[in-house]
Amino acid sequence: MRAAVFYGKENIRVEEVPEPATERGEVKIKVAANGICGSDLHVYFGAMGGIEGGDTQPSILGHEFAGEVAEVGADVTDLRPGDAVTVEPIISCDKCPSCLAGDYNVCYNVGFYGTGQGHNGGLAEYAVVARKNVHRLPDGVSLRDGALAEPLSVAYHGVEKGQVSPGQSVAVFGAGPIGIGVYLSLRAKGVEDIFVVEPSASRRHAIQGLGAEVVLDPSDGDVVAAIKERTRGAGVDVAFEAAGAPSSFTAALGATRRLGRVVIVAIHEKPVDFSPLHLIFTEQVITGVLAYKNDFEPVLRLMAEGKFPTTGWVDLIALDDVVDQGFLALRAARANKVLVALTK
Amino acid sequence: MRAAVFYGKENIRVEEVPEPATERGEVKIKVAANGICGSDLHVYFGAMGGIEGGDTQPSILGHEFAGEVAEVGADVTDLRPGDAVTVEPIISCDKCPSCLAGDYNVCYNVGFYGTGQGHNGGLAEYAVVARKNVHRLPDGVSLRDGALAEPLSVAYHGVEKGQVSPGQSVAVFGAGPIGIGVYLSLRAKGVEDIFVVEPSASRRHAIQGLGAEVVLDPSDGDVVAAIKERTRGAGVDVAFEAAGAPSSFTAALGATRRLGRVVIVAIHEKPVDFSPLHLIFTEQVITGVLAYKNDFEPVLRLMAEGKFPTTGWVDLIALDDVVDQGFLALRAARANKVLVALTK
Repeated sequence: MRAAVFYGKENIRVEEVPEPATERGEVKIKVAANGICGSDLHVYFGAMGGIEGGDTQPSILGHEFAGEVAEVGADVTDLRPGDAVTVEPIISCDKCPSCLAGDYNVCYNVGFYGTGQGHNGGLAEYAVVARKNVHRLPDGVSLRDGALAEPLSVAYHGVEKGQVSPGQSVAVFGAGPIGIGVYLSLRAKGVEDIFVVEPSASRRHAIQGLGAEVVLDPSDGDVVAAIKERTRGAGVDVAFEAAGAPSSFTAALGATRRLGRVVIVAIHEKPVDFSPLHLIFTEQVITGVLAYKNDFEPVLRLMAEGKFPTTGWVDLIALDDVVDQGFLALRAARANKVLVALTK
Repeated sequence: MRAAVFYGKENIRVEEVPEPATERGEVKIKVAANGICGSDLHVYFGAMGGIEGGDTQPSILGHEFAGEVAEVGADVTDLRPGDAVTVEPIISCDKCPSCLAGDYNVCYNVGFYGTGQGHNGGLAEYAVVARKNVHRLPDGVSLRDGALAEPLSVAYHGVEKGQVSPGQSVAVFGAGPIGIGVYLSLRAKGVEDIFVVEPSASRRHAIQGLGAEVVLDPSDGDVVAAIKERTRGAGVDVAFEAAGAPSSFTAALGATRRLGRVVIVAIHEKPVDFSPLHLIFTEQVITGVLAYKNDFEPVLRLMAEGKFPTTGWVDLIALDDVVDQGFLALRAARANKVLVALTK
């Protein structure tokens, strides 16, 4: 089969590799599409210490994928070839204190399919995963859109952590795929008073096309002041940091009211300058979110209901173009979300 | 009357000043004792930007004080001379979004008596405050111990924010007065599994004298590893950062389990190096606490029940010694908590 094989930093080759076997308890999926995510860029460009390279390479990247069941392992009885499925790619140990408490996303030994850690992912014609990592796609969600269930579940999980109620005000920093997912999840939960902050004109345009009414460009001036002015001087109830930039982190804290929440949903490559005194004076709560925990099913239901439109922010590319039109285009911000089509 | 008058950075003089008048709605207190707090040191040594000096000086410092009512303003009918009282020194505006929501401690215009911001405090024979800032001392709490209600309320408020349940494990970084207050508040709430981390031998000794069983010296080795080892590798449920040092901030995050809480109850003079990625992988919650909100009454009840013993950590000094045995001794860590006696 053809696959995008990761050999180490900035080294991916599309080549022919053996099709994987399906063992007991596993499911082989004929991949329809696989999305490329910000964390893939961190791996590809070598910015995630310890994940790239090492003795787990070469491996097949890709942790956002969906397709049709091609084959099931001996004891898998509830799925059969042809079923439309998507993959929740988290690998948890089932034994650590987090797993025993049901908090499998913060497993002390957490791993993921397709992140270069020894478990191949979805940038290939076929991928094999454990049964427990597979969710059926509901009617109304295409095989290709099914690959978006993963990033949308990250965003949805972030919104759950934000504990936002309808009627509250929210700021979303960053209108990349996660920022868009946060925005659409908020709308799906009935939240209306949303400020989006995004420096890229094309990303602002995309999220406006999805209905965002107040979209601020930080290069136009002080977004913290602009948000405070529109929130009785107080700031928003909840801010989501989905940009991963130190300036966004600082602005998210500044734009949030006293006792408000700031949820970090972006990967920050570097430490930020942070004043604990800010938390003293504001009693704000800061938290972060890792992946998803029981979020795929509600997200798939919302996708089936049309709450996550893909217009204007998702590009489909061919496997052969995965570097140029995928990794490089994303780093240069020439694309927002890229899905790699594995089947015609 | 005699008072410790603050003229600006490192400039306090004990001198004779006019006794303040008692206006409508106010209460004049004959001060029995006034505590010196870490934030007083920040003001005295000029480390709190904007608070020290300026056009609100000279002023009388001291925001931890108790005594007897000396006189009441015209419309104060529920207190009379001789009543034993303590002061909740927070000044809130009653108009901002926080105040309107009842969250007066995070008032957008918050101020305090005795912090050099234009409202005189308790380092004087008499102090005048608004009626709403006065709490009666219950039987069993001495006039001098009444001055400790303020710092103990800060600590108690922090513990409330920590949302600790009995049976959970906790780490307290710092065994200064706030760390001790946090420890005693935890014990009062039935929490038993408490690790205290403190580099000073005398402070370790003091908190051990109050019953703390596991008291770690960070110079003995890796306290994060030691705490993890004693918590099934996971870390504590909740950590309190009551030291104000960057190393404690980092250790508090490291010693806390995934999904755990870190509560900052110390003043950090400087920003810290902070990796938002840590919150992604752990989904920890970090928050801070400012002062107290409806915490004085429960604290005074606990004080009356003997839950906040003062043995081994509170020194009583004379007003004339406020600089040498107060500010300078505290900065040099020759003292832990200092109460200045205003009456014999």
